[in-house]
Amino acid sequence: MPARALFFDVFGTLVDWRCGVAREAARLLEPFGYSIDWLAFADAWRDQYQPSMDDVRAGRVAFCKLDLLHRRNLERILPGFGISGLAETVLSDLNLAWHRLDGWPDAMPGLSRLRQRFLIAPVSNGNISLMVDLARRNGFPWDAILGAETAGDYKPKPRVYLAACEAFDLAPADCVMVAAHSSDLAAAAACGLRTAHIARPNERGPGTGEAAPKVPVDYAASSLQDLAGQLRAS
Amino acid sequence: MPARALFFDVFGTLVDWRCGVAREAARLLEPFGYSIDWLAFADAWRDQYQPSMDDVRAGRVAFCKLDLLHRRNLERILPGFGISGLAETVLSDLNLAWHRLDGWPDAMPGLSRLRQRFLIAPVSNGNISLMVDLARRNGFPWDAILGAETAGDYKPKPRVYLAACEAFDLAPADCVMVAAHSSDLAAAAACGLRTAHIARPNERGPGTGEAAPKVPVDYAASSLQDLAGQLRAS
Repeated sequence: MPARALFFDVFGTLVDWRCGVAREAARLLEPFGYSIDWLAFADAWRDQYQPSMDDVRAGRVAFCKLDLLHRRNLERILPGFGISGLAETVLSDLNLAWHRLDGWPDAMPGLSRLRQRFLIAPVSNGNISLMVDLARRNGFPWDAILGAETAGDYKPKPRVYLAACEAFDLAPADCVMVAAHSSDLAAAAACGLRTAHIARPNERGPGTGEAAPKVPVDYAASSLQDLAGQLRAS
Repeated sequence: MPARALFFDVFGTLVDWRCGVAREAARLLEPFGYSIDWLAFADAWRDQYQPSMDDVRAGRVAFCKLDLLHRRNLERILPGFGISGLAETVLSDLNLAWHRLDGWPDAMPGLSRLRQRFLIAPVSNGNISLMVDLARRNGFPWDAILGAETAGDYKPKPRVYLAACEAFDLAPADCVMVAAHSSDLAAAAACGLRTAHIARPNERGPGTGEAAPKVPVDYAASSLQDLAGQLRAS
């Protein structure tokens, strides 16, 4: 039986967070005289990403939007780069760097083809407004915005994958999780979803990402266009 | 200050539930020999709509999708039309009549214009899958699917309007609720949203709907195209 819906990881799988965050940080902070390694700044910010969700995943604190976690993480890394005294307006604008990321070149055309055959939705840890801004910027033609905010928890908690299936009235086996990260796919597979790996070998700079899945998957693709071809989408 | 987002009621405001439900019921039940007043059947089903949400609104029972309420309401009205013994597959297909409604002629082109200038989302009591199916059928270009299922309660409870604003990181005053029903607009206004009334004088047959708002509103329009013009959207 063919699948009915495709769910997508976003950071790294569809959009280039590293160059986008570096670009936005440089744009907003260089006017204040800062001249640092902006890619290292992006990496440091991203390094806080997974640990910052742990308290929610463990149930120690209530769910809050990723935007809020990004803001806390930002304030944590600024001193290490010798940055201080930024106005609130600059901090909040900088925090929106994650809303202004560009898609990998295959992302929009691949999604547009896949949408001809499947329901498509992001199942990201990013909040709804972040997903909406990325969709507007990049022309991602989502049927709905699903993921952490609608589930009230963060991947890889099972609730996030299962809530997405339930929102579309589908059994997990009718859904495919699409991601560039094997840990995401392993968690989705444990919930009964099918899985598709997208190779993003340069996610964090040349040779840093997964060129191939580290776990068994139903599909392994070099791009969304490749996946659309494998799934016979228009 | 211009608004940033428009939220839309769907049943009656964007889609013609009455003719759609009647058409689907006739298509699915006439093969079994039933020949009844299908518009009266649609009206009877819709009559159960508001009361069926009261237990959730009052907090007596947990939230459940509108699809489930529609199904209970369907089983409640069938005996009155002399219909019995339908197979489960027929009942569940009939229940999806609400997923197969057609938009009023101005709905899709109006939304497409409004989307050029505003974030747009349904804030309906319909569940996510129902909204997605209507959007696919009619080409509604939503930024996100908001409303009852994401809020966990039913309009006119304040939570539903406020959850939609929060999902877009907007203050209520930056959002406009668009509906053909004054009760919906009054509840949204009480939450601080702006309001736009769309005249649907024939929602339930000629002369049955609201030709004009019964409460003060920020905009009163004869169609979504008219609203797009008033809001200077492309």
